[in-house]
Amino acid sequence: MTRVRVHNLALSLDGFGTGVDQRLESPFGHAGTRLMEWFFPTPTFQAQTGDRERRPVDPAAAADDVFARRGFEGIGAEIMGSRKFGPPGWPDDPDWRGWWGEEPPFRTPVLVLTHTPREPVVFPNGTEFRFLSAEPREALARATELADGLDVRIGGGPSTVRAFLAAGLVDLLHVVQVPVILGRGERLWDGLEGLERGYDIEATTTPSGVTHLVFSRE
Amino acid sequence: MTRVRVHNLALSLDGFGTGVDQRLESPFGHAGTRLMEWFFPTPTFQAQTGDRERRPVDPAAAADDVFARRGFEGIGAEIMGSRKFGPPGWPDDPDWRGWWGEEPPFRTPVLVLTHTPREPVVFPNGTEFRFLSAEPREALARATELADGLDVRIGGGPSTVRAFLAAGLVDLLHVVQVPVILGRGERLWDGLEGLERGYDIEATTTPSGVTHLVFSRE
Repeated sequence: MTRVRVHNLALSLDGFGTGVDQRLESPFGHAGTRLMEWFFPTPTFQAQTGDRERRPVDPAAAADDVFARRGFEGIGAEIMGSRKFGPPGWPDDPDWRGWWGEEPPFRTPVLVLTHTPREPVVFPNGTEFRFLSAEPREALARATELADGLDVRIGGGPSTVRAFLAAGLVDLLHVVQVPVILGRGERLWDGLEGLERGYDIEATTTPSGVTHLVFSRE
Repeated sequence: MTRVRVHNLALSLDGFGTGVDQRLESPFGHAGTRLMEWFFPTPTFQAQTGDRERRPVDPAAAADDVFARRGFEGIGAEIMGSRKFGPPGWPDDPDWRGWWGEEPPFRTPVLVLTHTPREPVVFPNGTEFRFLSAEPREALARATELADGLDVRIGGGPSTVRAFLAAGLVDLLHVVQVPVILGRGERLWDGLEGLERGYDIEATTTPSGVTHLVFSRE
């Protein structure tokens, strides 16, 4: 049975999953790297980046890594929003192939939700971006076929995750509360009053100072 | 040296410190008791209420109690907003003496920020409500005198705490993140972008499922 999962979605204390003013050089906008500092020292992140952005692996990141690596286990397909795939304007650039270079850390089919059709983009490591315009339920049906018995990850950004939560489609939601106040950006929780009622919730604080919250349902 | 402290301020995941539609029978509005369930089983809360709202003390609340009781140690005066003192319309009721019965859990002078002057209300246990219309800095100067060498607590609600934070007056901020999504109400963090930069922050998750965040500065 395919489950629908969200992992490693970092939020500021004021609930923003990304900042404002996203650009090519700043995928999280004015948030910079502040939401993801906990992630960089994890072996999971380091294994993804290869030599691209190598930073020291910090033993204190072991607890964070337990959560980080779960996000990559048992996933057969991802769905992502348009703004995760590229900076504003990417649909006008036929050569844009995503932020991630030649080794995108997906290794599965990825459905990119966009109103601009384009041909699939395929990488040797198994990552295959496909582009479609669809509502959450329809996109999920397609991703579930592609996942071939494994789970589907909703990869973000915040407004895409919010749409799948609002539609009641998410079985596991892992958010990471980072103790910064961003002030501006894209909020995850808007319109989701009472969401907690459908889930068991576990909270875990780690030495890096973040709190992992896992919402899960059978 | 008097420090300015905020304690036991519970927030929903979407950042609300109270709900909408506050009334006499629901001081937190539509939030009901959801933000304070972690607090009720603590010995600190039970000691405050006497027989009024007695609930079983839960041994699992020991960790929460460490945080809860700090809020009452070394405090010489409190400042609270008008909406903490009473439901909408209380300034028109000359007999209103606060939500707390004859044993208000303060036992110190309490400055209530309101535009409606009234005579002080004094209780035998040392609680003395005084009413004044003042900006944060002016109210704090007055409370510091009254605290007589002890600390001043900013008692809430969220908009009052926010005003003191925005003015840079708070030395210790203890918030309790409760895993509920309220959807509506009064937010703490609005307008406080970058607040974390002035503080050390510690996060602690407890068995009740809440996360205590303590911002402190020298």
